[in-house]
Amino acid sequence: MPRLLLLNGPNLNLLGTREPDVYGSATLADVEDLARTTAEAVGLELRTVQSNSEGALVDAVQAAREDCDGLVVNAGAYTHTSIALRDALAAVALPFVEVHVSNVHARETFRHHSYLAPLASAVIVGAGVQGYAFAVQRLATMLAEQSAS
Amino acid sequence: MPRLLLLNGPNLNLLGTREPDVYGSATLADVEDLARTTAEAVGLELRTVQSNSEGALVDAVQAAREDCDGLVVNAGAYTHTSIALRDALAAVALPFVEVHVSNVHARETFRHHSYLAPLASAVIVGAGVQGYAFAVQRLATMLAEQSAS
Amino acid sequence: MPRLLLLNGPNLNLLGTREPDVYGSATLADVEDLARTTAEAVGLELRTVQSNSEGALVDAVQAAREDCDGLVVNAGAYTHTSIALRDALAAVALPFVEVHVSNVHARETFRHHSYLAPLASAVIVGAGVQGYAFAVQRLATMLAEQSAS
Amino acid sequence: MPRLLLLNGPNLNLLGTREPDVYGSATLADVEDLARTTAEAVGLELRTVQSNSEGALVDAVQAAREDCDGLVVNAGAYTHTSIALRDALAAVALPFVEVHVSNVHARETFRHHSYLAPLASAVIVGAGVQGYAFAVQRLATMLAEQSAS
Amino acid sequence: MPRLLLLNGPNLNLLGTREPDVYGSATLADVEDLARTTAEAVGLELRTVQSNSEGALVDAVQAAREDCDGLVVNAGAYTHTSIALRDALAAVALPFVEVHVSNVHARETFRHHSYLAPLASAVIVGAGVQGYAFAVQRLATMLAEQSAS
Amino acid sequence: MPRLLLLNGPNLNLLGTREPDVYGSATLADVEDLARTTAEAVGLELRTVQSNSEGALVDAVQAAREDCDGLVVNAGAYTHTSIALRDALAAVALPFVEVHVSNVHARETFRHHSYLAPLASAVIVGAGVQGYAFAVQRLATMLAEQSAS
Amino acid sequence: MPRLLLLNGPNLNLLGTREPDVYGSATLADVEDLARTTAEAVGLELRTVQSNSEGALVDAVQAAREDCDGLVVNAGAYTHTSIALRDALAAVALPFVEVHVSNVHARETFRHHSYLAPLASAVIVGAGVQGYAFAVQRLATMLAEQSAS
Amino acid sequence: MPRLLLLNGPNLNLLGTREPDVYGSATLADVEDLARTTAEAVGLELRTVQSNSEGALVDAVQAAREDCDGLVVNAGAYTHTSIALRDALAAVALPFVEVHVSNVHARETFRHHSYLAPLASAVIVGAGVQGYAFAVQRLATMLAEQSAS
Amino acid sequence: MPRLLLLNGPNLNLLGTREPDVYGSATLADVEDLARTTAEAVGLELRTVQSNSEGALVDAVQAAREDCDGLVVNAGAYTHTSIALRDALAAVALPFVEVHVSNVHARETFRHHSYLAPLASAVIVGAGVQGYAFAVQRLATMLAEQSAS
Amino acid sequence: MPRLLLLNGPNLNLLGTREPDVYGSATLADVEDLARTTAEAVGLELRTVQSNSEGALVDAVQAAREDCDGLVVNAGAYTHTSIALRDALAAVALPFVEVHVSNVHARETFRHHSYLAPLASAVIVGAGVQGYAFAVQRLATMLAEQSAS
Amino acid sequence: MPRLLLLNGPNLNLLGTREPDVYGSATLADVEDLARTTAEAVGLELRTVQSNSEGALVDAVQAAREDCDGLVVNAGAYTHTSIALRDALAAVALPFVEVHVSNVHARETFRHHSYLAPLASAVIVGAGVQGYAFAVQRLATMLAEQSAS
Amino acid sequence: MPRLLLLNGPNLNLLGTREPDVYGSATLADVEDLARTTAEAVGLELRTVQSNSEGALVDAVQAAREDCDGLVVNAGAYTHTSIALRDALAAVALPFVEVHVSNVHARETFRHHSYLAPLASAVIVGAGVQGYAFAVQRLATMLAEQSAS
Repeated sequence: MPRLLLLNGPNLNLLGTREPDVYGSATLADVEDLARTTAEAVGLELRTVQSNSEGALVDAVQAAREDCDGLVVNAGAYTHTSIALRDALAAVALPFVEVHVSNVHARETFRHHSYLAPLASAVIVGAGVQGYAFAVQRLATMLAEQSAS
Repeated sequence: MPRLLLLNGPNLNLLGTREPDVYGSATLADVEDLARTTAEAVGLELRTVQSNSEGALVDAVQAAREDCDGLVVNAGAYTHTSIALRDALAAVALPFVEVHVSNVHARETFRHHSYLAPLASAVIVGAGVQGYAFAVQRLATMLAEQSAS
Repeated sequence: MPRLLLLNGPNLNLLGTREPDVYGSATLADVEDLARTTAEAVGLELRTVQSNSEGALVDAVQAAREDCDGLVVNAGAYTHTSIALRDALAAVALPFVEVHVSNVHARETFRHHSYLAPLASAVIVGAGVQGYAFAVQRLATMLAEQSAS
Repeated sequence: MPRLLLLNGPNLNLLGTREPDVYGSATLADVEDLARTTAEAVGLELRTVQSNSEGALVDAVQAAREDCDGLVVNAGAYTHTSIALRDALAAVALPFVEVHVSNVHARETFRHHSYLAPLASAVIVGAGVQGYAFAVQRLATMLAEQSAS
Repeated sequence: MPRLLLLNGPNLNLLGTREPDVYGSATLADVEDLARTTAEAVGLELRTVQSNSEGALVDAVQAAREDCDGLVVNAGAYTHTSIALRDALAAVALPFVEVHVSNVHARETFRHHSYLAPLASAVIVGAGVQGYAFAVQRLATMLAEQSAS
Repeated sequence: MPRLLLLNGPNLNLLGTREPDVYGSATLADVEDLARTTAEAVGLELRTVQSNSEGALVDAVQAAREDCDGLVVNAGAYTHTSIALRDALAAVALPFVEVHVSNVHARETFRHHSYLAPLASAVIVGAGVQGYAFAVQRLATMLAEQSAS
Repeated sequence: MPRLLLLNGPNLNLLGTREPDVYGSATLADVEDLARTTAEAVGLELRTVQSNSEGALVDAVQAAREDCDGLVVNAGAYTHTSIALRDALAAVALPFVEVHVSNVHARETFRHHSYLAPLASAVIVGAGVQGYAFAVQRLATMLAEQSAS
Repeated sequence: MPRLLLLNGPNLNLLGTREPDVYGSATLADVEDLARTTAEAVGLELRTVQSNSEGALVDAVQAAREDCDGLVVNAGAYTHTSIALRDALAAVALPFVEVHVSNVHARETFRHHSYLAPLASAVIVGAGVQGYAFAVQRLATMLAEQSAS
Repeated sequence: MPRLLLLNGPNLNLLGTREPDVYGSATLADVEDLARTTAEAVGLELRTVQSNSEGALVDAVQAAREDCDGLVVNAGAYTHTSIALRDALAAVALPFVEVHVSNVHARETFRHHSYLAPLASAVIVGAGVQGYAFAVQRLATMLAEQSAS
Repeated sequence: MPRLLLLNGPNLNLLGTREPDVYGSATLADVEDLARTTAEAVGLELRTVQSNSEGALVDAVQAAREDCDGLVVNAGAYTHTSIALRDALAAVALPFVEVHVSNVHARETFRHHSYLAPLASAVIVGAGVQGYAFAVQRLATMLAEQSAS
Repeated sequence: MPRLLLLNGPNLNLLGTREPDVYGSATLADVEDLARTTAEAVGLELRTVQSNSEGALVDAVQAAREDCDGLVVNAGAYTHTSIALRDALAAVALPFVEVHVSNVHARETFRHHSYLAPLASAVIVGAGVQGYAFAVQRLATMLAEQSAS
Repeated sequence: MPRLLLLNGPNLNLLGTREPDVYGSATLADVEDLARTTAEAVGLELRTVQSNSEGALVDAVQAAREDCDGLVVNAGAYTHTSIALRDALAAVALPFVEVHVSNVHARETFRHHSYLAPLASAVIVGAGVQGYAFAVQRLATMLAEQSAS
């Protein structure tokens, strides 16, 4: 059974409790449940990691190479600043979908650029926590196509 | 029954026949079928327009105000150049989801900026034609939440 | 009797119905009436065109060469993106006054630059629909001075 | 009876004697007469100040708060360099119309940006001295609308 | 017998009547005759389209895929603003030569960049209407080499 | 009794031992003592954290939400690079004063921009370790005003 | 007894009466009293100057060389535009602390750069009128250290 | 009989032997023969110079003033860096056509700007060695028109 | 007898007493004497003005139109910020030479641009006070040539 | 016996297993062995640290002050983003050589700038793992020269 | 007897024959005579070099170290492009004055920056050939002061 | 026996005599000896060229194609300005190592960019003359690996 890593970055542990007008009221646990349920519905396992530390996220990406087939990545603020995370994703060479809960293009200019996006399979922003479900479904489709070919 | 407008811009009539390594093999008809099927599954009607002309797309957006509740918009190249389309979307004030078949962030720099994205509810790029299905589903969720509140 | 062309660009057909806090409540018909009344008061005829299409606006400018002596131009969003319209205005070489209902300098940065302004005789922004009346009056003055010299 | 301040900035005392191909042949006295006549025709008083000194112009704007209801401002070169004048206009919070005799958009790049314009009600450029008359008329309209509401 | 499409963009219908010091005195009909004569001399057919509308030009490029082997393209002002036209040319994947009658490098900065040039086989600017003849000859050479290999 | 968190970022553990001509001779312990003494003098408790790790600093800011009423933040180099820290401060929504021992405006250009400053209540730079005392006093004033209103 | 000059620039005479949500309700007289009281408490005299004129401020800085040992400078808008004031401060070579009542980093971009800050001993922004007190205290500390060494 | 100078710049002596996928297989001798043959066919003499030295190319341009009526210039890399060559071409004031074998607009950004192009009569890029023939023909046309007028 | 105005701007009254390593030890009086002596030696009168106020300098330039034939201008810091002074110099249309005692190109970047230089006849920087003598001599030459022609 | 610290940053633990066409096939262990062997050959000890965490790398640099005389630093992606690491290296003030296995100048633009390089003694890029050996040898030379002087 | 090198760069051998409205009618020989005469009048010898080659100019600067005490340098177009010439001037460490016959600040933007100016003692532009005389006189003054101290 | 070309550019003939604090005391002869000795130790011949002329360096690179297998290149100032040299290195397609004696990243901004580096195998800066030895050793390794494969 293929497995996904759901990786959430800095401050996403505060989801649902922080600026609800921007991020909505679902908590990180809700998000992880939604993603897991969606994954199981399409025949995938899902493992989750959240950290506020860039190094820990790099570690988690590297570890995914051992036991995962794809990643859903919401790197939070590190999206815009971390070349290290980009390099880790390039190194493990697994397909990943980048997700942001809010529409980053409608926010500050420094949130418009993502170091990760050019390497991502797909990028989904502003769809709220539903974006995580879409990401899991997209990876399911991609893994299915891949194993079919 | 709420209705969506699916708006496809320049060169999207060539979908499936143009640069298949970038855009895949599904045709515009396939995309419109997929969107319609998805819409019906979540209780929405769907109307479609495709044009290579910026003015015709502006006309279509304005017309949507009469009979639609939301839009799925893939404005193609006009995404990056058309303030007129942006103004039309602002004027009709309907929720819309921006879709791109390919991952624009992995392509030329001039495709990284969208005049529409800051006004969009959500933006989905690089998910292939599946992105259209996600867009319809997201709008269904939004319209449902809206009518619930 | 000298004649003016009043040219309104994309989304100006929505005037009075779109974002009234930005654009006021006068409709396009109101604007065209005001301009015509003002023109007649100063001994000028006035013809009107509105289109959402850049190409149609270029056509209209070219046609003005045959039967008009000046233009009042509110090119809407094409102000900021259309070199084609600029070239048409340069080609017909008629005096024109650029008008914007709202104060574009108080809005998004991409509305601060106009491809047309360097060729215009005058530019009037933020004076609401009264700006159209001023534009007609200014052209009347210019045409009078011109025929006087 | 409402009163306006007509404020002219550096080198505008030379109007009519300086680069007539750029600025025309009307003198500062002509401009002040035209503005006063126009004001009286629409039921407004008009007070005038001209100075080459940025500080004196700031003083004049501050003083206007005591006895004026709006301003016509041609800040000349300080338009492009004076944040102090902008702050003064923001502080007195009176409606004002920015005027330039020549079309600044057709001149050097450093004349394209105005620190004042984002705060102005309207901006009128390139209409020669007639621009002052339009500015007075616009303020009359605004003050009338304001007292009507 | 191979066929070329000669595509002329906005305002080129005014050729010979517009700013003759910049564009010379040959008319669009002269240009089309010259191109056709040159084409026939090297064993090629030539079809022509001129439009002021970006969308119509995109349509024409797409149609060329059915019945043409190459294009001569003078997109006028759209050269500098139209990603849609670029995408159409990329989609049809036919060889094309970009032509400008005047030397765009000696004109305004915004005419120095072309969205089409990176995809063109060759770019010929400033050679007057003779540039169209060179473009036809170059395509003849390319098509000959291609069919030879 | 209200409590403050004093947060010191990377390399500030070297204070007093590193580049004394830039940073002075007071050590981190001295700084923490000064801040605590100042706090107690104005009726506040003070807790301290120092870390070289961005993630640990984000954790500390999040934790402050539980037991603190304001922060004094010297994020050192992360001031200029950490959107994650900015997001954490925005999330906890506590008033904070940004402090830098040296005058960052007199140093390298990359030290002139702060991701934190736009969210700060106040910013104090170049006042040496005395800046920490001022920051504590300012927060005391703010908390007093706040509890008074 | 050492003496300080408290220098306030353009529009600061309106303090307390202008945009109170940005600048608070204390007047210039309040600020000068606070600064003088603070100065006396730490054994310093204090002289004050306020002007809307750049030239008068330059004169005041030059004069300070005769009878002052340090300056507290809030140059208002001239902070961002006056190289002349910077040169005057460099010429007199007295220690000075730059103060801004509001947090300039949270306002328009053109308020983020200060010509004076690289020469200042310290910069204190956003601490309201209390910032003036901190500035006086900092100068007292510096003058004491200086006379001690 | 009018005479042309064919000037080839740095590394063009390697033509045909260097990166043939970029520059084709024709050698410098081939190019010079083609240019000479083309020139003779239209009644012109042709003199040739190739050098890797910027100074020698400047010397050659200056010398052309004595015995030539026009130039075909492929300045290679100096196109993008040599103001000296531009000044020499401006000084001799002869008509010249700029040629590049490859399409410089499809290569590195630093090859997109030419110091010479604003002074050239025409610019022909990407037409392979045939570009040299076009350049000679264009100069023949220009010289004929010139001697006809 | 022709007359020159020697205009010195802000902080030049401190010459000789301010940063002598940058500006040397000659005072303003020395400079004015040197300029006057030099002027008399070449048959010119010389009038002098120094002010720290931009407005006063503009006044002085305007006044020069009445009784002077040329100006030597060291506008100090206003060189880099004053469009008003530039406009005044353009308005009076007298020949002027710009002088700076120090080599501004070896100092901060913001001193590299001069608003006045494009209008100046000549610019002399870094020649110390001797630069004033050169400026007077150059104007003498120009006035002589002018009266000779 | 002098000692060096060999510091490797994020993702360098994957060396030899990640993108071998970019980074080669030597592993981190190979690199550390090579560096140690080279060090011993020139009479130096060598200690090694690798971490994916910026904070841990800052800690390691700080610790080097206690027991090392120089550093070989390959900070990986942090090279381009970490001012904290730069500050740590500045604080410990030990000589260090910056190494990159691949030629960063031939890769993405964001890898061309290094925050560390201006402080480094030497920078060696693109020499593969041999670059580490060169770095050790260079430090040996420097330490020898230093102890000799 | 101290000696100067007068160095003239590319295209200055055309002086007097090239664009006389920009450069005047004096020839290079005239300039060299003027400089020599001026030099002799102040007790200096003068040697001259002119070359169109950057390398030859670098050679000449290096050679000056053997037998000259200062340079007058008009590097023509290399002023704006040659770091090599700058390095040569830095290496020989002789005082030099940079001269340009025309006012480069009133010409194209690419002539506004000089690689040499930051190292020059003085820069004199727009004073025509008289600028060479001023340069010689300035160097005489500097050498006299130097030998006096 | 494989052979290397050691190419030194402008002003490197002054090595050891020019700015010794930047470049050290070793002369060009010392450098060439060191490189030759190092080469011989690893079984390579070495030929040397130094020139101040860009054209001569291009010639030398072209010539290397006949008799060399790799190059050590210190192009001095041409590193930052010469596309011609870059093109020559691309044309000969030999492996080369770029060397700079000083750490260019710690110097002026215009020395941070190299036109050659993206084509180099390796770049070694700031290692003094020892950098030449490393470059020779690196090329030896590369040539050995190449002949081994």
